[in-house]
Amino acid sequence: MSALNYNPSTYEIPGKNTLNHGVLLNKKDDLKIVELPIPIPEEGEVQIQVKATGICGSDIHLWKYGEIGIFPVTTPQLLGHESAGVVTAVGKGVDTLKVGDRVAVEAGIPCSKCDQCMSGRYHLCPTVIFKSTPPHHGQLAKYITHPARWLYKIPDNVTYEQGALLEPLSVAISAIERVGVKFGRSLLITGAGPIGLIVLAVAKATGISPIMITDVQPSRLEYAKKMGADFVYQVDPKRKDVEIAREIRDIFGGEGAEYSLECTGVESSFRTAIMATKDAGVCCLVGVGKNDQLLPVNNFAMREVDIRGLFRYHHTYPRAIALMASGNLKIDHLITHRFDFKDALKAFDTTADYSTGAIKVQILN
Amino acid sequence: MSALNYNPSTYEIPGKNTLNHGVLLNKKDDLKIVELPIPIPEEGEVQIQVKATGICGSDIHLWKYGEIGIFPVTTPQLLGHESAGVVTAVGKGVDTLKVGDRVAVEAGIPCSKCDQCMSGRYHLCPTVIFKSTPPHHGQLAKYITHPARWLYKIPDNVTYEQGALLEPLSVAISAIERVGVKFGRSLLITGAGPIGLIVLAVAKATGISPIMITDVQPSRLEYAKKMGADFVYQVDPKRKDVEIAREIRDIFGGEGAEYSLECTGVESSFRTAIMATKDAGVCCLVGVGKNDQLLPVNNFAMREVDIRGLFRYHHTYPRAIALMASGNLKIDHLITHRFDFKDALKAFDTTADYSTGAIKVQILN
Amino acid sequence: MSALNYNPSTYEIPGKNTLNHGVLLNKKDDLKIVELPIPIPEEGEVQIQVKATGICGSDIHLWKYGEIGIFPVTTPQLLGHESAGVVTAVGKGVDTLKVGDRVAVEAGIPCSKCDQCMSGRYHLCPTVIFKSTPPHHGQLAKYITHPARWLYKIPDNVTYEQGALLEPLSVAISAIERVGVKFGRSLLITGAGPIGLIVLAVAKATGISPIMITDVQPSRLEYAKKMGADFVYQVDPKRKDVEIAREIRDIFGGEGAEYSLECTGVESSFRTAIMATKDAGVCCLVGVGKNDQLLPVNNFAMREVDIRGLFRYHHTYPRAIALMASGNLKIDHLITHRFDFKDALKAFDTTADYSTGAIKVQILN
Amino acid sequence: MSALNYNPSTYEIPGKNTLNHGVLLNKKDDLKIVELPIPIPEEGEVQIQVKATGICGSDIHLWKYGEIGIFPVTTPQLLGHESAGVVTAVGKGVDTLKVGDRVAVEAGIPCSKCDQCMSGRYHLCPTVIFKSTPPHHGQLAKYITHPARWLYKIPDNVTYEQGALLEPLSVAISAIERVGVKFGRSLLITGAGPIGLIVLAVAKATGISPIMITDVQPSRLEYAKKMGADFVYQVDPKRKDVEIAREIRDIFGGEGAEYSLECTGVESSFRTAIMATKDAGVCCLVGVGKNDQLLPVNNFAMREVDIRGLFRYHHTYPRAIALMASGNLKIDHLITHRFDFKDALKAFDTTADYSTGAIKVQILN
Repeated sequence: MSALNYNPSTYEIPGKNTLNHGVLLNKKDDLKIVELPIPIPEEGEVQIQVKATGICGSDIHLWKYGEIGIFPVTTPQLLGHESAGVVTAVGKGVDTLKVGDRVAVEAGIPCSKCDQCMSGRYHLCPTVIFKSTPPHHGQLAKYITHPARWLYKIPDNVTYEQGALLEPLSVAISAIERVGVKFGRSLLITGAGPIGLIVLAVAKATGISPIMITDVQPSRLEYAKKMGADFVYQVDPKRKDVEIAREIRDIFGGEGAEYSLECTGVESSFRTAIMATKDAGVCCLVGVGKNDQLLPVNNFAMREVDIRGLFRYHHTYPRAIALMASGNLKIDHLITHRFDFKDALKAFDTTADYSTGAIKVQILN
Repeated sequence: MSALNYNPSTYEIPGKNTLNHGVLLNKKDDLKIVELPIPIPEEGEVQIQVKATGICGSDIHLWKYGEIGIFPVTTPQLLGHESAGVVTAVGKGVDTLKVGDRVAVEAGIPCSKCDQCMSGRYHLCPTVIFKSTPPHHGQLAKYITHPARWLYKIPDNVTYEQGALLEPLSVAISAIERVGVKFGRSLLITGAGPIGLIVLAVAKATGISPIMITDVQPSRLEYAKKMGADFVYQVDPKRKDVEIAREIRDIFGGEGAEYSLECTGVESSFRTAIMATKDAGVCCLVGVGKNDQLLPVNNFAMREVDIRGLFRYHHTYPRAIALMASGNLKIDHLITHRFDFKDALKAFDTTADYSTGAIKVQILN
Repeated sequence: MSALNYNPSTYEIPGKNTLNHGVLLNKKDDLKIVELPIPIPEEGEVQIQVKATGICGSDIHLWKYGEIGIFPVTTPQLLGHESAGVVTAVGKGVDTLKVGDRVAVEAGIPCSKCDQCMSGRYHLCPTVIFKSTPPHHGQLAKYITHPARWLYKIPDNVTYEQGALLEPLSVAISAIERVGVKFGRSLLITGAGPIGLIVLAVAKATGISPIMITDVQPSRLEYAKKMGADFVYQVDPKRKDVEIAREIRDIFGGEGAEYSLECTGVESSFRTAIMATKDAGVCCLVGVGKNDQLLPVNNFAMREVDIRGLFRYHHTYPRAIALMASGNLKIDHLITHRFDFKDALKAFDTTADYSTGAIKVQILN
Repeated sequence: MSALNYNPSTYEIPGKNTLNHGVLLNKKDDLKIVELPIPIPEEGEVQIQVKATGICGSDIHLWKYGEIGIFPVTTPQLLGHESAGVVTAVGKGVDTLKVGDRVAVEAGIPCSKCDQCMSGRYHLCPTVIFKSTPPHHGQLAKYITHPARWLYKIPDNVTYEQGALLEPLSVAISAIERVGVKFGRSLLITGAGPIGLIVLAVAKATGISPIMITDVQPSRLEYAKKMGADFVYQVDPKRKDVEIAREIRDIFGGEGAEYSLECTGVESSFRTAIMATKDAGVCCLVGVGKNDQLLPVNNFAMREVDIRGLFRYHHTYPRAIALMASGNLKIDHLITHRFDFKDALKAFDTTADYSTGAIKVQILN
């Protein structure tokens, strides 16, 4: 990063002639850096100079496929939802933040009024605005606005890069919470991609033990081993899921893992995770894949293995910041590549190209 | 029943010349009444004169298909596991029961030592002996023995027939417990067979509201309506599950049922139940069907609808007896047919023949 | 009620010359009916013609003692928070209610933004406005305004009187929820006053069994017995709490009640309830009494009996309405006295006078 | 320890002439080392050469006061219940352990049959035999016997000393479990004695953050600070609990700690912990003190702060071993003094003398 203009300790309050830029997805396969107006914060909002934004797999998917899950790209939009920055202007009625405050951005803005919101499940708010999920603009711009209620001050010893990591960290915390695994309990993670590895980092930091992680690529498993995975298991996709599950169960002492988190979105991997979970355990789907999947129903039903899915996160930012502050968590190394904002398109190319070994790529400003 | 020898207020302590009889499944399609020795209670056991035993769908399945789920019939065995009776002899070390005590029989005998047993989940004990599940003998005999620990005294105002109903009632209680539905919450029951109807009875008795029950047969829905179902829905098997689910959701105000219990074992019905469950709700599979089923994974995962299965029951007998004692529960009417022990084979024929309208058939002694 | 002007099927939209009246607590011991302006609904609010309002013990306490708990009366205010009525005008932005809709009023208005609100515990919102808790006006007026968000349409077969009962019913539902008792489990209720009796009604309606209720007055116990309490126990205040607790435990089979709800606010009764709760059970304080109380700490700690308190209610209105719709709940008989609005002061006198045998007194309009 | 005979890698199978010794509490204030017969394992038991045993505060209490809580010393008995050792003989029917296996001893032996045992709460078994709790012998002998079911193999990289620490570690795990605190949540620990410090170690190892610990002694707080406590607070016993609580709440950002664990047994400390816990939080009593205590009832009830107590532990050994294996946990330094078995009385003197700065004292063999 030494060659970059990125200086985390400074910020620029936009003046009359300041130019704003954003990474705009015009339509499928059509991504470009564009000039934008500087956004003005409305009541309850603040203006932020974004300092770091990570690229998520869903950003790549929107770019390459023009959709993510049930959300097609319908109109040109900015990408990005993993951001941290500094407050550069404050809207009416905001008394919790001031110019110069360093903040992480929670990308979803729920209504705060519906039954789901009032029941503590604001991530399921039917009218939530989630930045970068079509048709909403994302956060990959030099300046954005956001409601103060969904920004979190980050401590001095948390960098902007770490602040941007709070978003995928939130997914990992939610995944662990959703499956209910606690310290001293066993966990199977299927898939050593970015999410699988962050889940691993959180699991290690919170005393979950033993932990196994699986993947088809030996290099990823080696990386996971260095991160402290107790067991790694290389999946041979030509073998039967029931056999793979049996071998995994054996490594966990014959009965399988008490909890499992499926982080690939691949049907056979989900099947394996279910069958490798201990009786009365819990298996949660974190990866996103096909709408309909053939699941081993009697296997999970007769053994009372609970099946859950994960949708984003809620109430995680304060916990994620506290976990970082605990000193247990080591995730900086997951940021394998950093790019200046002007090279944002290179950042996307690098993320999309498996041969780069990229885990998490961030765009700095 | 007027012609039967059945007199619930008397019992016969077996003498030297007393004959014992049992309903033996020799092999698939080969069921007969046989003469048996009077069993002698070992340490911790008591001898029971069985007074009433209900026929379960699984008894019929063992008889007609020679298997139930993953358990094939491998050796001649007695059927039946829904029984109540009277203590006629007491083994060594038993101080909680005496001759003449009226008892309900919990059919499963767990080891009480393994991790599952010691964790409060004795129904998942890997070495449980469950009466009538191959290769273990069932309880359809005039005299049986059973551990005192797994017998429950029934109050004077609970009949033997009601005592025998405690077993399917235990399944219904477990189903409701497993899905977590409470009074004042909405429930969808798919399938108005014996289990669906007992679930309905428990749901009504415990203030769950509103309740919808579905079936393909109008006569069953009419019966359910009389039992107090708030809504009944006739399933047209030719229609798409997603459409049926939408209609069910609409009846529940658009968002679906907070909880759902699938009681048919049919894949399309499971799919419907999942899709008709409200965001953040729970859908539990009670019916047993195909091992592998094509499930709407993104539908339940993205909406965080939890998927669970049910395996038998645990800790239900005291609750079932207390619920009967509460006076809220009306389930006697579900016993549509009663047969004397000598007519046990007729009882099986009646149960297996849909045209009889049988819900619960009991064999009395 | 035959002499009253009360006609639940009609309502009057206030005109230019319509007079509004309210029951105003000027200061301690100084209660009167006053003339008020007709309130105009602001954005998000509706105007309601109140049809029925129950008098709560806290209303009496405010009147007679000039305070309730930590809240002193500091300014003249209306009393009352148990109300149902009919919508007579609709403010800007309200699209869920229209003139003529029959509604029950949830008396607390939380901020919907703070951490407690967003965590599903809006009853603990630090800035909640709770009608009739000083310094906020109550609902005892002919016309009031209220946010549409905190009103609930009541079905045609639920009367206004029942609608007003939804408020104390909410307390009872919360109490049962807070202690976690479910159908088929045992419950001890100490105190057969209005709240104890409504708790009893909910417990009966939801299959909780067996239920014991205690009191010092035989007449209240007789009433509770008629309502279906399995056991009643007359407390002799001269006896030691440890002895009373032992006797109660014995009636519950020696081990005590699995759950207990303390509904008197008296220290000795709380002590008794704790000691009469089964090992690993839960005891919740519903009644309000002294700030500091001498509790049997080792008794509850060594036996892992959890101690909880209750503060109002949350998310109960839809459940309370559903429970009423279930047909199980019988609580109309708890309304022992009804008064026309013009006789509101008589209603307060009747409630405050124990000799009247009043359980719930309502003021109708 | 260099002068000791203790060699953890060897063990001696007792022969005809082997002498056994134990630390016997004859009666209050009368402790001595005595010669004992070598115990022979009965069915289901094994014989263990004890290699390390920690001294618990309750051992000191039995010695100095002749009682612990409700259990008076009624007969001469061995002390000690924090032990690890090596299997030297195997009784009939034991197939899970063999001679030479290194094991930690879970000191309580429940019946495995009663309702509490079968409900997953074996620590509340009314007939549990807990080693060293009167009238049962403890484990401070060179050879003891114990049921194989309640022994846990320890991995090669876990020393006997660590194995003996699993017992107080179990208490700490149970305390954290009982209060329900998870990673990323805040915790207040009142009391930096042995249990408070082990709780701190577990909390740090599992990502709980921030953590405050309180004590009256600055040296203990300094020690806790080095262990990673985020905040330490020195209690001035002359100040009012309500003021201390306010200051603690302020350090936690004004709202207090989400969870609190009281580890002193002192009434004023319990009061402080309750009042310093955040609304809707949980406060658990771990320390043992007076039977009756004056608690701030309205404070916890109106804020819905749950009050719990802790009794020993259950299901902790596998988790404690897994947590040790995770590498996060650092607790060896808590063993401040080690003594050879022949110097066992010196070990007791050292533990009882506050001026030694002893945290955990172990007796090795």
